[in-house]
Amino acid sequence: MSEQKPVDTLKEIGLRITEAITEGRFPVVDLPNRGTDNIEFDAELNQFVLGESKVKRDSSNLKHIRSFAQLTWVAYFAKQLLDSNRTSSLRDLYYSSEAFEVRFNDQGESDRIITDLECLTGQPREAFGIYPEEHSSVFGSVKMNYTVPGYEGREVDLTLSPDGLPIGRALMTAEPAETDAKMILAVESGGMFSRLIETKAWKRFRAILVQLGGQPPRSTRTLMRKLHEAFDLPVFLFTDGDPWGMHIAQVVKSGSANAAHISGLTIPNAKWIGVTPADIREYSLPSEPMSSVDLKRLDELARDIRYTGHIWQKHIAEFRSLRRKAEQQAFSRYGTDFVVETYLPDKLE
Amino acid sequence: MSEQKPVDTLKEIGLRITEAITEGRFPVVDLPNRGTDNIEFDAELNQFVLGESKVKRDSSNLKHIRSFAQLTWVAYFAKQLLDSNRTSSLRDLYYSSEAFEVRFNDQGESDRIITDLECLTGQPREAFGIYPEEHSSVFGSVKMNYTVPGYEGREVDLTLSPDGLPIGRALMTAEPAETDAKMILAVESGGMFSRLIETKAWKRFRAILVQLGGQPPRSTRTLMRKLHEAFDLPVFLFTDGDPWGMHIAQVVKSGSANAAHISGLTIPNAKWIGVTPADIREYSLPSEPMSSVDLKRLDELARDIRYTGHIWQKHIAEFRSLRRKAEQQAFSRYGTDFVVETYLPDKLE
Repeated sequence: MSEQKPVDTLKEIGLRITEAITEGRFPVVDLPNRGTDNIEFDAELNQFVLGESKVKRDSSNLKHIRSFAQLTWVAYFAKQLLDSNRTSSLRDLYYSSEAFEVRFNDQGESDRIITDLECLTGQPREAFGIYPEEHSSVFGSVKMNYTVPGYEGREVDLTLSPDGLPIGRALMTAEPAETDAKMILAVESGGMFSRLIETKAWKRFRAILVQLGGQPPRSTRTLMRKLHEAFDLPVFLFTDGDPWGMHIAQVVKSGSANAAHISGLTIPNAKWIGVTPADIREYSLPSEPMSSVDLKRLDELARDIRYTGHIWQKHIAEFRSLRRKAEQQAFSRYGTDFVVETYLPDKLE
Repeated sequence: MSEQKPVDTLKEIGLRITEAITEGRFPVVDLPNRGTDNIEFDAELNQFVLGESKVKRDSSNLKHIRSFAQLTWVAYFAKQLLDSNRTSSLRDLYYSSEAFEVRFNDQGESDRIITDLECLTGQPREAFGIYPEEHSSVFGSVKMNYTVPGYEGREVDLTLSPDGLPIGRALMTAEPAETDAKMILAVESGGMFSRLIETKAWKRFRAILVQLGGQPPRSTRTLMRKLHEAFDLPVFLFTDGDPWGMHIAQVVKSGSANAAHISGLTIPNAKWIGVTPADIREYSLPSEPMSSVDLKRLDELARDIRYTGHIWQKHIAEFRSLRRKAEQQAFSRYGTDFVVETYLPDKLE
């Protein structure tokens, strides 16, 4: 991630464009090529990165002029957000374009231009105050200091709401201050998150709990990585026992090709604790047969570069021979506390 | 809603069942009939209620024995939750049944039996600690006191997280203590909720903000009604301008037929402020043509008893002639602050 302040990056881009116009040239910007042939997996970083190939967006080219104008407007809008200390959802940005008679066919198109801005600046959209709507939650013995306007420097204790705190702009940008936690334990479902709070499992395991809720938004991954680095805490991922749950863990670990242009999101040392296919067998969990979609997903993952490690190939082979899947909630068959009393201690030993 | 303590209601039911068995009779329970012919709209209460018709669930009848056993087990499970001060998601309850070799074909079946328990006891499932997974959020100048174990009597200020607080079990059961707010303003989307927080619209309008996020979970409706009653605050609903958004507002006002057996959820005086079809026209909002599904939904609503009032029929007629719909975010075409500076003051005047 670029170390420059987001607003300075935007100013620089604006300056380059206005200089070209003043000098009577058509402005041009260089963007990294996001085509699949320019995405590679960097084994050392343990994440996808973009290669050297660039594409030019040239305002003198009739085919480029529309997306050039859109990109310039998105950069302008981002600058307005930063100047006024505001945020915008992706959807709001799409609608805001109408006021400027900048046309997008649909939100898909404005989302893609926002990705272009990320590529151009080397900064994630959140650095410009642009967020998706989803939220996940966090709970644990951590103190952080807010940095958002109106709350600057105010301390927030992540145990203060027994329902958890949503990971929005304020928490994502807060600074870690202190903790007595020994690990970060991220779980897929809201039900499991609530169970671990009310059984005081967070105290027992000295864990900061994170609710992922499916593929977690980047704000959640950013917060997890920030806590992981600030306090040097190991990260454990507990998801449903199916290809989709396993891949939630993988994306937290190694990132996704879609975000190859963004660094600072992955947690290479994060560990998937389960539900593994071996768990389904060993704990005799209630399970369901995999659908053809599940099996097809396993085939894709088997060929995915992020799954080349021995342990991942073993999980895939076991899922394939088992042909069954189980949810986190399946442990409830042994009573509501089994997962806290037995499964998690086994796994976190 | 029954005024009896939930645990006492369960004990009474258990006692009736065990007495029957001790005396050598097959236990029988009476449930209100939830068939459509026994659901009526009570104009005075402004909500659906169940009529007098009852159905017997008789354990001596082979056709009833399965659902009788399921209902007894769900009541047992609810009692265990109350005794141990725990909660369960609907999904967890479904999986927990396996430990007792109680069979449900799927979660749909266990959800229906939970509704039976609500009918039998006159208490909502939340009174027994049984919750769905969805969450919506709240933010505003209100102090409440938690009642959940470990947090009893601890005060929570609903402005303390600038991302809002999730409305889970803890907030839903907290007691309102004080406020200087003058209204409750509930909005459909997370983007609008964030916008109203960061522009300090909550201060300007002295509003408690609630994010509904589509049809709001009951916990959210319960909290809104509690704040409405405790502080005598008017409730305003701001949703997307389409049949679905209008109906979100209607359900907050008048409830749904599905929950005819539950009282204490509706807010008859709540007002839908928009986006109305007239707003789409008057503010020249970016809009989309209605789909055939939207138009069919309007036909259904036109015949719905909750829409008999003149104002609702007018909205429906206007939607039908306009044949277009608009989202809350559509106001962004006039700049990100238009909704706060102009639209809401117009509407809340």
